[in-house]
Amino acid sequence: MTTDAAHTVAKRLPERTIERLSEYRRMLLECLRQGRTHIYSHELASMHGITAVQVRRDLMLIGFSSDTKKGYDVGVLIEFIGTILDSPDGLNVGIIGMGNLAQAVTHYFNGKRSRLRITAAFDIDPRKVGRTVAGVPCYHMDTFAQEVPRHDIRVIILTSPSSVAAGMVGPITDAGIRGVLNFTSTPLTFPDNIYVEDYDIITLLEKVAYFSKDPEPAEDSE
Amino acid sequence: MTTDAAHTVAKRLPERTIERLSEYRRMLLECLRQGRTHIYSHELASMHGITAVQVRRDLMLIGFSSDTKKGYDVGVLIEFIGTILDSPDGLNVGIIGMGNLAQAVTHYFNGKRSRLRITAAFDIDPRKVGRTVAGVPCYHMDTFAQEVPRHDIRVIILTSPSSVAAGMVGPITDAGIRGVLNFTSTPLTFPDNIYVEDYDIITLLEKVAYFSKDPEPAEDSE
Repeated sequence: MTTDAAHTVAKRLPERTIERLSEYRRMLLECLRQGRTHIYSHELASMHGITAVQVRRDLMLIGFSSDTKKGYDVGVLIEFIGTILDSPDGLNVGIIGMGNLAQAVTHYFNGKRSRLRITAAFDIDPRKVGRTVAGVPCYHMDTFAQEVPRHDIRVIILTSPSSVAAGMVGPITDAGIRGVLNFTSTPLTFPDNIYVEDYDIITLLEKVAYFSKDPEPAEDSE
Repeated sequence: MTTDAAHTVAKRLPERTIERLSEYRRMLLECLRQGRTHIYSHELASMHGITAVQVRRDLMLIGFSSDTKKGYDVGVLIEFIGTILDSPDGLNVGIIGMGNLAQAVTHYFNGKRSRLRITAAFDIDPRKVGRTVAGVPCYHMDTFAQEVPRHDIRVIILTSPSSVAAGMVGPITDAGIRGVLNFTSTPLTFPDNIYVEDYDIITLLEKVAYFSKDPEPAEDSE
């Protein structure tokens, strides 16, 4: 019943909708873990700081309707969102720069979403190359062009030092990569057919810091 | 000349503006590193995928005007944005859960922004407690209530395992923390006076994966 969702939604959905669908699924998986079988739109909304109307609009947009008496069926909705977000045969992700952040992301990710897999890492550190780090094989960056097709890698997580980040644009583009999640603090320019999400942790923390300040200008204590 | 910016902007700016200001500064710092002294709004915009009008509107909103012939003075604009984003006497940040992600964030952050400092870490792992990890002292979570005021910590980065994240809400709230950057995959509910930024890396990666898929529904190969 849910497998043709990808066909009803031929056009790309807006970025914010995709973010919310991912967050709904995260929340639904947590509900499932707690043994809940049904959830109302206003509950999904309240966990999120958005409105129930927005939740219903998002789910209508992807063609999902529910038994409104008992709320949405958690398991069915998880599966349905999966038909939108996931590739039918899964999607392989590579990670460049196998430092602390990359290892954290890999540990964090693998096993949680069966359809997205971090399958290979690339580094130049001889202590990592040729070994298995955080459960994935680590290759030398020099072999990137060969390993990407061999592992059918479509998406790259970039966590290399910022100083070398710009030098990764060429190899990533040439290898036919379709999407990049850029965790370095260097904004990078890729061809238009490659989807790039720049996210600097510093921006996140600066935003939290700003909204944590006193509304009145603080007195200068130094 | 720039020090009274915080006074001209008494009201809180919108979240997206704050994000962009942080990103402008990141870009400006990169320009400075490359020895550039001036930049035009359309250059700042092109690096960002937004319009020059948006850049000028943001900078007008914070009360910054520039010599339009040569563009914005990079050094002056960096300092000006600092008066908006930063607290005059700096802001101390604590980090809960000193795993790979926390160590990466701490290494990445400390030294880059003088006004935001990660000054203490909290964990329960006896291999970390009582030691210096990634350059900061690591305390037992049991001493959180005492260490927060001692270090004047206002913001918390939460990277603990998702399974224990909900248990951190009480201690964080009771300690008078003003802002939380939540990296766990558990959405958390705090009182309204605490600013919370939930950011799950899975959401980021799922978004990139979605926009990396073929626009046409892929054939089912399994």
